[in-house]
Amino acid sequence: MASTNEQAVRWLPVDKIMKTVYFLLLIALSITLTQAEPRATGDLGLIIEREDGAALIINTTEHRQLAEIKGLGDLSHASVVFSRDQRYAYVFGRDGGLNKIDLLLDKLDQRIVQAGNSIGGAISQDGKLVAVSNYEPGGVKVFAADTLALVADIPAEYAPGKRSKVVGLVDAPGQKFVFSLFDAGEIWLADLHDPHKPTIEKFKNIGKQPYDALISRDGRHYIAGLFGESGLALLDLWDTAKGVQRILLDYGKNDDKLPVYKMPHLEGWAMAGDWLFAPAIGKHEVLVINQRDWTLHKTIPVIGQPVFVMARPDARQIWVNFALPNNGRLQVIDAKELVVKQTLNPGKAALHMEFTPRGEQVWVALRDDHQVVIYDTATLQEAAPRLPAKHPNGIFFSSRAHKIGF
Amino acid sequence: MASTNEQAVRWLPVDKIMKTVYFLLLIALSITLTQAEPRATGDLGLIIEREDGAALIINTTEHRQLAEIKGLGDLSHASVVFSRDQRYAYVFGRDGGLNKIDLLLDKLDQRIVQAGNSIGGAISQDGKLVAVSNYEPGGVKVFAADTLALVADIPAEYAPGKRSKVVGLVDAPGQKFVFSLFDAGEIWLADLHDPHKPTIEKFKNIGKQPYDALISRDGRHYIAGLFGESGLALLDLWDTAKGVQRILLDYGKNDDKLPVYKMPHLEGWAMAGDWLFAPAIGKHEVLVINQRDWTLHKTIPVIGQPVFVMARPDARQIWVNFALPNNGRLQVIDAKELVVKQTLNPGKAALHMEFTPRGEQVWVALRDDHQVVIYDTATLQEAAPRLPAKHPNGIFFSSRAHKIGF
Repeated sequence: MASTNEQAVRWLPVDKIMKTVYFLLLIALSITLTQAEPRATGDLGLIIEREDGAALIINTTEHRQLAEIKGLGDLSHASVVFSRDQRYAYVFGRDGGLNKIDLLLDKLDQRIVQAGNSIGGAISQDGKLVAVSNYEPGGVKVFAADTLALVADIPAEYAPGKRSKVVGLVDAPGQKFVFSLFDAGEIWLADLHDPHKPTIEKFKNIGKQPYDALISRDGRHYIAGLFGESGLALLDLWDTAKGVQRILLDYGKNDDKLPVYKMPHLEGWAMAGDWLFAPAIGKHEVLVINQRDWTLHKTIPVIGQPVFVMARPDARQIWVNFALPNNGRLQVIDAKELVVKQTLNPGKAALHMEFTPRGEQVWVALRDDHQVVIYDTATLQEAAPRLPAKHPNGIFFSSRAHKIGF
Repeated sequence: MASTNEQAVRWLPVDKIMKTVYFLLLIALSITLTQAEPRATGDLGLIIEREDGAALIINTTEHRQLAEIKGLGDLSHASVVFSRDQRYAYVFGRDGGLNKIDLLLDKLDQRIVQAGNSIGGAISQDGKLVAVSNYEPGGVKVFAADTLALVADIPAEYAPGKRSKVVGLVDAPGQKFVFSLFDAGEIWLADLHDPHKPTIEKFKNIGKQPYDALISRDGRHYIAGLFGESGLALLDLWDTAKGVQRILLDYGKNDDKLPVYKMPHLEGWAMAGDWLFAPAIGKHEVLVINQRDWTLHKTIPVIGQPVFVMARPDARQIWVNFALPNNGRLQVIDAKELVVKQTLNPGKAALHMEFTPRGEQVWVALRDDHQVVIYDTATLQEAAPRLPAKHPNGIFFSSRAHKIGF
C-alpha cells in the first residue's frame, strides 16, 4: 500500500513551492494594505470635469484627488446630491444620465439614461428616493436610491397632450419634492410618502416662465425666478393654502436693451440673518432683500453681472462670481456692513464655489485654467496648492447629504 | 552541473502544496470578504451608556448597533464631538477623560485623563484642535485632534492664584473657542489661529455664576445662563467691541421657594425662524423669545419643568423633555402656531434627544428602560424596533461634525 501510494504522489521542488507561497502571501498582504486604512466619507467631494464627462473624487482635509471617475456622459450642466451615509454621489447630467458613484470604492456603481434632456435632481428627506427633473420628455422621474429602479413617473402634463419642461426641483421636509413648470407657469408640490402613489398639489398662474428656483435652508420657502416677467413666485410650505405670492415686483429683466450674459442661478442665493442676497439680472448689483417682508433693503454695487451669490456657512461673508467678461474675478461682501470688502483674481472662468461645511475654506473651479483654487476665508489667501482638473465647472461636497434642499 | 543542481533540490508532495495554497487563498479571501463592504460615516452615531462607561456605535439608516466600545470612564455627564471626516468621535467624560473612538475600526483609538473633573468639549472650525473645559483645575486644555498631544493650556485664572470652573465651552467661526468662568462671572473668547499662542479677549462682570451657554447656529451669538441672578449674558461675536449685554432680565430662578429639579441645558435651546425657544427655570413653561430684540414674545404651558427644548432641523417642530417627576414624557410644539400639538409617553427617563440631520426621525434615550426609541417626526409613531442600550443618557450623530457650535 505504502509503495503504491508513493507512486501516485506527484512531487514539486521546495523553491517552486516557496515562490507560490510568497506570491500568495504578497496577494494577501497587498489586499490587506490597500484596505488597511479605511476611508471616512465626511470630508469627500466631487469636482465635475465638464468636457471629459468625468468627476474627481477629492478629500477636503488633505486637499487632494483620490480618484477620477469617467464615463458620466454630458456634464455641461451637472449637479450632484449625496446619499445619507455619504457613500454615494448621484450625478445628474444634461443628457438625461443619472450616474451613481461609489466614493468608497472609487467606481461608477451604476449609470442609467432616464430621459433625453435633463436639468437637475434632488434626494428625498429619508435618502431613499432620487428625483430627476426633465426637459424632454417634460416631467419628474423618481428612482430608488439603492437600485436606480424607477418608482414613480410624474409627467408634467399641464393641458391635454401638453408637457412642460421642469426646472427648480428641490427636496422639502416631509418626504416632498417641489418643482416648477417652465412652459405652464406652475409650481407642483409632490408628496412621496407612498412613492408609488405620489400625491401632487398644483399651484397655477404663478407667473410666466419660471426658470429656476431655490428653497430656504429650513425648507419653508420655495422661490422661483421668472424669465417671462418681473418679480418672483413665493410658496410658503408652512401655509400652502395661502397659495403662491408674487414678491419683489421690480425684480427681473426689466430693461430689454440690457444684455444679459448669463441668467443667474437661484440655487446660490444667500440667506444670511435677516437678509436674502440675490444677483440682480443684467446689472452690476447684488440685491439685499428683507426676509421678513420680501422688500428690497439695499443694492450693493459689484464689478460685473453676478451669477452665484453664496453665503459662507456662518453667514458673515457673501461670495459672488460673475458672467463674462468678468468671470475671472470674485468679490467678497461683508454681511454685516453690506459692502464689498475684497476683490480676488483667481484666474480664468471662476464658474462655481463650494464652502467647507463649517466655512473655513472655499473651493473655486477655474474652468479655463484647469484648476481648483482653495481659499482660507479668514485671510483670503490660498490655503493649499491648486489642484489640477480638466475644465472643472462644479464642486460638490458630501456634507450636502445632511442639508435640506441640497 | 544539471545533476548537481538536482541533488540540491528538496521535494514536497503536490497534495501538501495544494493544502498550503488553499489555506493561503482562504486567508486572502477572508481578508477580502471581511473588508469587502466598506463603511461610510455619514449616518453613524454614538449612544452613551452611562453606568457602564461605554458607548454604542450605531447606524441611523439601518437602525442598528454596530459595536460597543468600553473603558470610557465616568460618563455621568458626557458630550461628544466628531472629526471633520466623521471617522473619530471624541467623548468627554466627567472624570476628565478624553476618549477618541474610531468609528470605522470599532475601537477606542486613544484615551487620556487630562484633568480631575471636566464638563464638556468642542472641536475647532478646521477640525485640528479639540478643547476641553475643566472644573478642576479650572481652565481649558487644547489638544491636537490626531494625536491628543497637548497644544495649549489656558488656566482660568481670574485673580492671582484663583482659578474658576469653566462651563459653556463652544467653538466659533474663525478658529475660536468661547467659554464662561462660573466663579468669576466672565466670558472668554480665545483665538487659536496660532494654537501654541492663543490670544484671549476677556469680558468681565457679565453676571453672577454663568452655568451653561449656547451659540447660535451661525456662530454669531453666544448666550450664557446665570445661576446667581436673573437674566442672560449675550455676546455678539460680530461686534465684540459692544461688550456683553444683559438680556431677558426676568429670566431666571426668580422665586426662591420654587423647587428646581434640574437646571435646564442651554445647548438644546431652539432657534427657529424668528423665535428662540427656551426652557423656563422651575416653571411648567417654554419661553418664546423674539430673536430680533431678545424680548419675551409668549410663554407656552407644558406638562413639566422643561430640560431640553430642541428644534427639528427644519424648525417646524420643537421637542421638549422634562425634569422629574415628568421625565417619562415628551411634548411636541408646533413652531408656527406656538402651541403643544402632542404629548408622547415613550417610557422611563427620556433624558436626551437627537434628530437625524434632515429631521425625518428623532432618537430618544430612555435611561431607565434601557432602550432607545426612534420616532418618525411626521407621524409621531415609532419608526423602528427599539434598540437596547444600558442606561443610555446621550445620543450624538456624526452629522454634528459639519455644524458650528456642536
